[in-house]
Amino acid sequence: MIEMRINLRSEERLDDLLIDNLKLIQNPNYFCFSLDAVLLSDFIRPRNNSRVLDIGTGNGIIPHLIEPKYKVKEVIGIDIQKQVIDMAKRSSVYNNLQNKLTFINLDLKDALKEFGTESFDYIVSNPPYMKRGSGKVNPENSLAIARHEIFCELEDIIKVSSQLLKYKAKVAYVYRTQRLAELLSLLEKYNLSAKRMRLIYPQLDKKSNLVLIEAIKGGGVGLDVLSPLIVYNKAGDYSEEVKKIYYPES
Amino acid sequence: MIEMRINLRSEERLDDLLIDNLKLIQNPNYFCFSLDAVLLSDFIRPRNNSRVLDIGTGNGIIPHLIEPKYKVKEVIGIDIQKQVIDMAKRSSVYNNLQNKLTFINLDLKDALKEFGTESFDYIVSNPPYMKRGSGKVNPENSLAIARHEIFCELEDIIKVSSQLLKYKAKVAYVYRTQRLAELLSLLEKYNLSAKRMRLIYPQLDKKSNLVLIEAIKGGGVGLDVLSPLIVYNKAGDYSEEVKKIYYPES
Repeated sequence: MIEMRINLRSEERLDDLLIDNLKLIQNPNYFCFSLDAVLLSDFIRPRNNSRVLDIGTGNGIIPHLIEPKYKVKEVIGIDIQKQVIDMAKRSSVYNNLQNKLTFINLDLKDALKEFGTESFDYIVSNPPYMKRGSGKVNPENSLAIARHEIFCELEDIIKVSSQLLKYKAKVAYVYRTQRLAELLSLLEKYNLSAKRMRLIYPQLDKKSNLVLIEAIKGGGVGLDVLSPLIVYNKAGDYSEEVKKIYYPES
Repeated sequence: MIEMRINLRSEERLDDLLIDNLKLIQNPNYFCFSLDAVLLSDFIRPRNNSRVLDIGTGNGIIPHLIEPKYKVKEVIGIDIQKQVIDMAKRSSVYNNLQNKLTFINLDLKDALKEFGTESFDYIVSNPPYMKRGSGKVNPENSLAIARHEIFCELEDIIKVSSQLLKYKAKVAYVYRTQRLAELLSLLEKYNLSAKRMRLIYPQLDKKSNLVLIEAIKGGGVGLDVLSPLIVYNKAGDYSEEVKKIYYPES
């Protein structure tokens, strides 16, 4: 039955999302989803009638996690890479979510023309993490696109997010803690007020490596920093909280 | 013997600093030191030949904690309130630290004239926390000065810190987490690069209420967010880490 409904291409695999029996097509030659996307999808708070945009959706992991969890009206995922959008589309068909999830192969710089200003109720993104020229650039071009800011700088993502968001609507990102100061300053520059933040720490006695942040367009001052999110316990297993996020049905 | 060396005025008391047998004169009608100052003094990393400035020193708690811990060359504490500087001075004499600690009754806006640009190796401050017009203003004027930004806005403190700091020297503040976004944006505005930060959480499952931050003048990008500092354990007692900071000799 499964084999009938899905066309796995060479090197692709079908991974279980552990929620609503959903599955996602992934290809290890492209960026595969990681804990970042799972934690971001858990952190956000879209209302159930929201029209949501995922910028740089990759294989569509975030839209696939958002829909069953929040029952939003619609999630659109865009990505500059044609091959990952192709995988995301086939995953949505496989999961019978093609009426809720839309995947578009689109360059971020064309997003305003495509959707128009103030057209979304909620925007999410797991942007590329490294600055151009820092770190090693992966020789596989498609991996490099996801990890490095080759096609879009963080500033472009934040600027476009602000243009596409309705007034008082929200945006959420997961990003490297090392660049938190720049992230906050760019949010402020584009009238996105940081209102809710959560630091992710690999362990209780370790530095934070990732940060979850939610901002409101025109939201004013006052930032809540939620309790620390600790990923691993002392024994090296997922913490109870992360287990609950990762395996909501177990 | 103690009574010979110290002149306690009406309503003043002598509190034990639990380090090097140091004591501090406090008066409950003025701002008494709290955990903020203790955690900030522990967080900073001045070199032992540093000339250090404490802006808004109050009764001198931070200079009294810095000197025995880091053996710096000199700590100068300034405050706009004459009465607290008087207490700080008498405390330093009582502790026989008058050659190391200097307390000056000075308005922040006169600090540049008093000390000259780029004259300090390290600056610390526990600035007033509330924005003018927010919260209840304490009817006792002196308490209101410490808690509210009556005589100096956060921006003034950061601007003057930057002017007084040597190039590549460091500044550290403890501040309300709710205003972290403004704090980081002001640091950037005055060329102070946030490099090391620690969020303080009352308990592991609570929102952060305070943040410790260290910035370098002209320090470039890249922010370390250290492990979370949890103040109380589940039973409501100080955590092991806070106990070690508060009672270093026990």
